[in-house]
Amino acid sequence: MEKLIAPDTVHTTFHVRYAETDAMGIVHHSMYLVWFEEARSALMRVQGTSYAQFEADGVSLAVSEVEMRFIAPAKYDQLITVECRLSEVKSRKMTFEYTVFNAETGQKLTTGITQHICINRDGITTRIPPQWVKRWSVTENS
Amino acid sequence: MEKLIAPDTVHTTFHVRYAETDAMGIVHHSMYLVWFEEARSALMRVQGTSYAQFEADGVSLAVSEVEMRFIAPAKYDQLITVECRLSEVKSRKMTFEYTVFNAETGQKLTTGITQHICINRDGITTRIPPQWVKRWSVTENS
Amino acid sequence: MEKLIAPDTVHTTFHVRYAETDAMGIVHHSMYLVWFEEARSALMRVQGTSYAQFEADGVSLAVSEVEMRFIAPAKYDQLITVECRLSEVKSRKMTFEYTVFNAETGQKLTTGITQHICINRDGITTRIPPQWVKRWSVTENS
Amino acid sequence: MEKLIAPDTVHTTFHVRYAETDAMGIVHHSMYLVWFEEARSALMRVQGTSYAQFEADGVSLAVSEVEMRFIAPAKYDQLITVECRLSEVKSRKMTFEYTVFNAETGQKLTTGITQHICINRDGITTRIPPQWVKRWSVTENS
Repeated sequence: MEKLIAPDTVHTTFHVRYAETDAMGIVHHSMYLVWFEEARSALMRVQGTSYAQFEADGVSLAVSEVEMRFIAPAKYDQLITVECRLSEVKSRKMTFEYTVFNAETGQKLTTGITQHICINRDGITTRIPPQWVKRWSVTENS
Repeated sequence: MEKLIAPDTVHTTFHVRYAETDAMGIVHHSMYLVWFEEARSALMRVQGTSYAQFEADGVSLAVSEVEMRFIAPAKYDQLITVECRLSEVKSRKMTFEYTVFNAETGQKLTTGITQHICINRDGITTRIPPQWVKRWSVTENS
Repeated sequence: MEKLIAPDTVHTTFHVRYAETDAMGIVHHSMYLVWFEEARSALMRVQGTSYAQFEADGVSLAVSEVEMRFIAPAKYDQLITVECRLSEVKSRKMTFEYTVFNAETGQKLTTGITQHICINRDGITTRIPPQWVKRWSVTENS
Repeated sequence: MEKLIAPDTVHTTFHVRYAETDAMGIVHHSMYLVWFEEARSALMRVQGTSYAQFEADGVSLAVSEVEMRFIAPAKYDQLITVECRLSEVKSRKMTFEYTVFNAETGQKLTTGITQHICINRDGITTRIPPQWVKRWSVTENS
């Protein structure tokens, strides 16, 4: 389930998959990056665009920086909500912020920030195409 | 989205995550096993139980055999439906069958079968607890 | 560690990564497909070629069928050997067979077979380029 | 290949697996956390202990914080070296620092830091057992 909760913010809700757990009995810390990425995809979908369309325009968003803090673990089959907010759009760079919740108890599990740079098909840093800056900048004025 | 479409069959529908793709531009073949597993979880949820509860009873379902055929590839952001049917429950063994579809076009992408044996916490093969055989056997008589 | 043990067979040996385990305390069954794939890569490397070179020639090997049998589980930090044999090369299709061992005890853990079809950049089935059939066919005559 | 290059630092070297790449044609950013974790395992092995032994003592190291910077991408089949240094051991907390290199060109690809807290089997923060603080503190005096 995906829900736009502000012009720049999505809530995406799903169950923890068994394959996402490790021998400690909890979700492996690397999986949160996969969830963050899926939340970015969800944000673009609920905004009426898609990251697939962005890449179809010949550009990609390469992850340049990641920060994560782990507060409490998630477990198999729990219902999880990832809140993802597009917090900054610059000419060549975007920043997203995340909070992961247990969807049933509301407990905060993890927070994170990812930065992305726009690259072309040769992997060279380039400007975010103006039509995309415009679409995303609604989030700046909100 | 999870939907019981027969007493023994679920449809679970979700978007392909970017992390599930590989450099060939398509979903990595190992991911279908993760999707199959999530479809088993979904089946148990829509049947009103859960695999977490099953494990809480001191037993697990270890995968003993897998077969998969790949017909067409899945790509990032596509909406996918996995149909999962519990096709056999024996005293120590269960079999599930799967078909993966492109949810929008209806195109069949992949089929698969997984067999599972019931093990206890020491990893020894054991009988499926009778209350679980009973819950699941509805699927046998349907 | 990679070692050619016959013209068509490699042994590749590595430690189980923590991220490869699941909440059952054992390696997740989907990971064996990742290990099989890495063993195919190792086979090509020890044969003096590489799958990257194959793809550089404009073709890919898409997985078309998988079969796996799980005999005993693998656990975190264990030393694992995957034996991978290229068992058949046809004009458009290749078959590999696998056995996974505990490298220290010699215990057989898993067996598998994967079939692959050669596709071009448009995803259309095509002939394996003749220079590659030739390189790989040594395995046929051995 | 694993090599102790200082009392607190390991170099672990391996090939990029195909499954670690994504549709952008490069290694998915989440995989670096898996590589960091494997480098921690390698460090403990070359120091003559193992993380499996640590967990056998009834405690785990839960990841509490992560920071990563991505400088250049890694690609399929490249030989990668992860340098992992245990930079701090406190009574309940440990910090590791990482640099990922292209092993053939020496190019720096990624840097990272992970913090870990010691937890018991109930998930409660606890002291790192004294025998482990002692083993690891060699790294403090080096």
